[in-house]
Amino acid sequence: MTTQELQALVDQIRSGPLTFEADPAEIRATFDGMLATFPVDEGVTFQEVTLGGVPALQSSDPGADLGRVLLYLHGGGYVAGSAAGYRTLWSRLASAAGVRGVAPEYRLAPEHPFPAAVEDAVAAYRALLDEGVAPEDIAVGGDSAGGGLAVALLVAARDQGLPMPSSVTLLSPWTDLACSGASMDGKAAADPSLTPAGLRLRAADYLAGHAADDPLASPVGADLTGLPPMLVQVGTAEVLLDDATRLAARAAVCDVRTSLEIWPAMVHVFAMFGFALSEGREVVDQCGAFVRRHFRK
Amino acid sequence: MTTQELQALVDQIRSGPLTFEADPAEIRATFDGMLATFPVDEGVTFQEVTLGGVPALQSSDPGADLGRVLLYLHGGGYVAGSAAGYRTLWSRLASAAGVRGVAPEYRLAPEHPFPAAVEDAVAAYRALLDEGVAPEDIAVGGDSAGGGLAVALLVAARDQGLPMPSSVTLLSPWTDLACSGASMDGKAAADPSLTPAGLRLRAADYLAGHAADDPLASPVGADLTGLPPMLVQVGTAEVLLDDATRLAARAAVCDVRTSLEIWPAMVHVFAMFGFALSEGREVVDQCGAFVRRHFRK
Repeated sequence: MTTQELQALVDQIRSGPLTFEADPAEIRATFDGMLATFPVDEGVTFQEVTLGGVPALQSSDPGADLGRVLLYLHGGGYVAGSAAGYRTLWSRLASAAGVRGVAPEYRLAPEHPFPAAVEDAVAAYRALLDEGVAPEDIAVGGDSAGGGLAVALLVAARDQGLPMPSSVTLLSPWTDLACSGASMDGKAAADPSLTPAGLRLRAADYLAGHAADDPLASPVGADLTGLPPMLVQVGTAEVLLDDATRLAARAAVCDVRTSLEIWPAMVHVFAMFGFALSEGREVVDQCGAFVRRHFRK
Repeated sequence: MTTQELQALVDQIRSGPLTFEADPAEIRATFDGMLATFPVDEGVTFQEVTLGGVPALQSSDPGADLGRVLLYLHGGGYVAGSAAGYRTLWSRLASAAGVRGVAPEYRLAPEHPFPAAVEDAVAAYRALLDEGVAPEDIAVGGDSAGGGLAVALLVAARDQGLPMPSSVTLLSPWTDLACSGASMDGKAAADPSLTPAGLRLRAADYLAGHAADDPLASPVGADLTGLPPMLVQVGTAEVLLDDATRLAARAAVCDVRTSLEIWPAMVHVFAMFGFALSEGREVVDQCGAFVRRHFRK
């Protein structure tokens, strides 16, 4: 990165119209509009599919091993974002891993509060297994709310007796819906994307009165025993920094093979900004190598 | 790893004579005796040198770039261990990085309490710079007490206006001499090498009445701003697990590029046991690649 590249991006995010403190309908419109301006890679094709009754988008590129899958859960604070809107990010991750990507359009709050998203994620995972894909050939991933959801999916799947996938890759995961991390205050001035107030509003939409410390809502407090190798990527200009470091510490206590990568000055889900930041490209390559290394040999 | 390999090693450590709850003289004799049984690699040569008045041992192998250095601080609870005793570990790390290794025989407690070890480490680092080695061509590393000491060296060097080295690599670092991590209790039954009681005795030897929360004694509480890229390696069968995860979290808050690698079931400084564990060899290679990547291009 050059300082200029980063500063230009931070300025663009700060001056842009997106705020997670708005109403969900407004967030959806603004966020999808922003995502629609992101470049899509040439040579990647997308297909609408259904997985366990959940609509999903599937990507593949000419080099992809179609027998292997990255099951990816997009971010958007549980109230916004879509598989279609996030297609550049997750299809790049799938391409970097050399496999097809599948992104469920899980149900969103406030219309569909917790645990609707977890149910949809588990249904999609179960459907891949039912199709005959070996768990060792499945990797799970997610960013932001989708990162917390990815961990919740694994905890729920384990508790339902399903086999674990080969790995899980998390970009700036939101793992504590109580928003109790010290970085909520400590990094508030540095974070151009998210505010504690915005996150608390979206947590309320998703929880709809349910306890924030339910491990399927806030997996930072979950028993993570038995989860597959986990890679956590996070920037230091994030109010969600502690959600990442505390999740890694929790995974450690639960004897999970864990890799935590901390990137100074990087912003929330900076992998999305590969068009503007070299780190955004580097982190996608690093995630792809991690996913690839953990597939069945 | 096979479960058998690991169980055999754990049994060997548990049934062995070394305990850090003994008197320092007894720890030194037992520990050096144990270390002397570890195989040394063929083709590596060692030379006694002096760095800033501190005796040190230097390693090189036929493939090493002698213009670059890994400055390594051995473990031993600040009361035991030696550059000579640890030569297999640090010379392997240096070889994996493709450079010469230098390990100071820093002064030990209780004869030489805090800050003697920090002073010796800084003197050795300063001597390398004075010899004309560019900071970008120096990497720092350490394990256990030497891992905490490596971070203290960097904090002290930064505060003295010295330039930072290219990277720092830490194996199971002891970063909190107050021994306040939850893993002190949580992992006590799992850890075959160290006990909270033993660590507290050695902390008392080293501190000799000095405050445990001095950032140069317990760098988990230090301002780590400006430190170079940091790699932290730790096993989950360690009472020092939280010393590693909390250091990584602290480094994150201070905007340090940080990689944390957590290895399930692995024991304290498992890189020492490459002769018995495949993970011990894998982690040395991973550290070597990290060090190499961060040297000046």
